[in-house]
Amino acid sequence: MHLPRQVTVQRMHHVAFAHGPGEAVHERLTALLGLPVTHCEAGEGFVERMLAVGDHSWVQTLEATGPGVVQRFIGRRGPALHHIAFEVADLDATLAALRADDVPLVDAEPRPGGMGTRIAFLHPSACGGLLVELVAT
Amino acid sequence: MHLPRQVTVQRMHHVAFAHGPGEAVHERLTALLGLPVTHCEAGEGFVERMLAVGDHSWVQTLEATGPGVVQRFIGRRGPALHHIAFEVADLDATLAALRADDVPLVDAEPRPGGMGTRIAFLHPSACGGLLVELVAT
Repeated sequence: MHLPRQVTVQRMHHVAFAHGPGEAVHERLTALLGLPVTHCEAGEGFVERMLAVGDHSWVQTLEATGPGVVQRFIGRRGPALHHIAFEVADLDATLAALRADDVPLVDAEPRPGGMGTRIAFLHPSACGGLLVELVAT
Repeated sequence: MHLPRQVTVQRMHHVAFAHGPGEAVHERLTALLGLPVTHCEAGEGFVERMLAVGDHSWVQTLEATGPGVVQRFIGRRGPALHHIAFEVADLDATLAALRADDVPLVDAEPRPGGMGTRIAFLHPSACGGLLVELVAT
């Protein structure tokens, strides 16, 4: 296993929490802890909000607004933490290393993420059920 | 609501993932992403491992080893992300502010956490089902 030499995780980029429509979890986090919403955009069946924690990490809330992956997740689990995203130094090299080791991936190639990032998800079976996203900023 | 002026979140301290015995999620995270286990200690019915992500943040794995909160959580949800922990500048002042606003808390006063920290959990009803831990290092 040669992966660690080729994968450099720089920081925790974000942690995502999925919830149903109208719960306004972001408003609670702002009111209770002073975390500001610094970004908001719509995905397929959800609205994604980013709340800054320091300068380079975020809590991401995923509000289900219609059919899609977030609504299906909430249907199975209720409102719950969804994934961890790590910022890596070189996403292409990281994915090449993971593919070379036959690590199960959701995204074999990077795709566009929020805030202008490039992202790729590992399959949860790669980490014992933990859903991991890799991010290049 | 006067809380944000009194609460200063400094960083994401850790994100916790709960899993059953023998799954060795920490070994997967080390093998796949190079995250090193920098701390390990036993709690009531679980073993807690800390994997460093940069200098001041960790992924925490909670391995159920017997009856307790981790085993009950896994019984309801399966292996899943458990909570987010934020490091705050002044934990006592933060809890005083939260109590003054009648925010539901699991720990009204700080208690000892891992790695010599002081911690307190908010009740998940405070944040729409998201379990938040506050940490003073």
